Amino acid sequence: MDTIAIIGGTGPQGKGLGYRFARGGHRVVLGSRTKERAEAAAEELRPRISGSGSVEGADNAEAAEIADLVVVAVPYDGHDALLAELGDQLAGKIVVNCVNPLGFDKAGPYGLDLGPTSAAEKAQALLPEAHVVGAFHHLSAVSLLSEADVLDHEDVLVCGDDVAAKARVLELAATITGKPGIDAGPLRLARHLEPLTAVLISINKRYRVRSGIAISGLTGGQR
Amino acid sequence: MDTIAIIGGTGPQGKGLGYRFARGGHRVVLGSRTKERAEAAAEELRPRISGSGSVEGADNAEAAEIADLVVVAVPYDGHDALLAELGDQLAGKIVVNCVNPLGFDKAGPYGLDLGPTSAAEKAQALLPEAHVVGAFHHLSAVSLLSEADVLDHEDVLVCGDDVAAKARVLELAATITGKPGIDAGPLRLARHLEPLTAVLISINKRYRVRSGIAISGLTGGQR
Repeated sequence: MDTIAIIGGTGPQGKGLGYRFARGGHRVVLGSRTKERAEAAAEELRPRISGSGSVEGADNAEAAEIADLVVVAVPYDGHDALLAELGDQLAGKIVVNCVNPLGFDKAGPYGLDLGPTSAAEKAQALLPEAHVVGAFHHLSAVSLLSEADVLDHEDVLVCGDDVAAKARVLELAATITGKPGIDAGPLRLARHLEPLTAVLISINKRYRVRSGIAISGLTGGQR
Repeated sequence: MDTIAIIGGTGPQGKGLGYRFARGGHRVVLGSRTKERAEAAAEELRPRISGSGSVEGADNAEAAEIADLVVVAVPYDGHDALLAELGDQLAGKIVVNCVNPLGFDKAGPYGLDLGPTSAAEKAQALLPEAHVVGAFHHLSAVSLLSEADVLDHEDVLVCGDDVAAKARVLELAATITGKPGIDAGPLRLARHLEPLTAVLISINKRYRVRSGIAISGLTGGQR
């Protein structure tokens, strides 16, 4: 059992990941700006958690402090400022960044042009003592929060420069999809994973579905 | 039966797409800098084409002139200059851009930082009278050139601003994957489709596979 904090744990993506990790037997601490909002989100999830997992609420700093693996699931707007504040709490920890820097206009969603960087790389620059891993960008909140046993038609793409941190996140992905995540390469490839979410949202709108990414060709069979 | 030209038809990706389209019953004109090189590539494919399809060689300008649907499969280096030369031949035509602007260094492949644009959008800017569609970025040349009947575990993501041109390319994708392509949205989303190829190449290297993209959730079943 790991203690996993979700910074931004009251948003749909953060709450959905927290639900899956608690269901998978982990101790989950949802973080939010105020402990009250986080407690409310935890209370909402708690009746749905059976087994050895648990979910509680805390403010973001406290959540980051308690956990040894911290998921960052905040909107991109404000992402840098929030992480800069949490430098002490996150030092030495595995920080899983699943932030998608997206814009929306009348032509639909698109990835923001950050130059040759990504939210994950910015997080690493702001948190030089943390081990930042990019993952969980493409799972829809609705699927995460559903009753579905495992989201086995989706793959979790994981990128990072710290081998041990990445290995732990690859394994954690199985809690959600029933199979390890896929090692997509170094952290800088988050530049290409993050904006891909704009493509999925665009497909969702066109086909009225909840689309996800699966990587084919890995086993020569259905995958 | 369509007449489909492949600009850059002697490279592995262009030749692979040409093979699939000819196998699917189309008349394919492989284009290259010189007619001789194109003819040689056509001759190499010809014994593998049965049925009503055909493959021939021409220089790039002639190939573009003959066809009404033109696939651009050239390296990104030189892409702009070549398209600028073909403005007259490509006016009014469907131009399918499958160019991936990638870089490689000791940390592996990565998408080049083009700013807020893509090879496909640059093609459209250079060819204002053509109907540019982005598609076929993620199919490996090895798979395309294999004997496999259909690449049915892969999806072709298609983006474009011209509805009719996009519809035609969505349908053409079925020649390769056995099912229509997926409408990913407007042409600008090529910014996110093109560099995704770097992620697939990175996965291929790590897992020694030929990976591809499949979109899950479209039918609620395996897809």
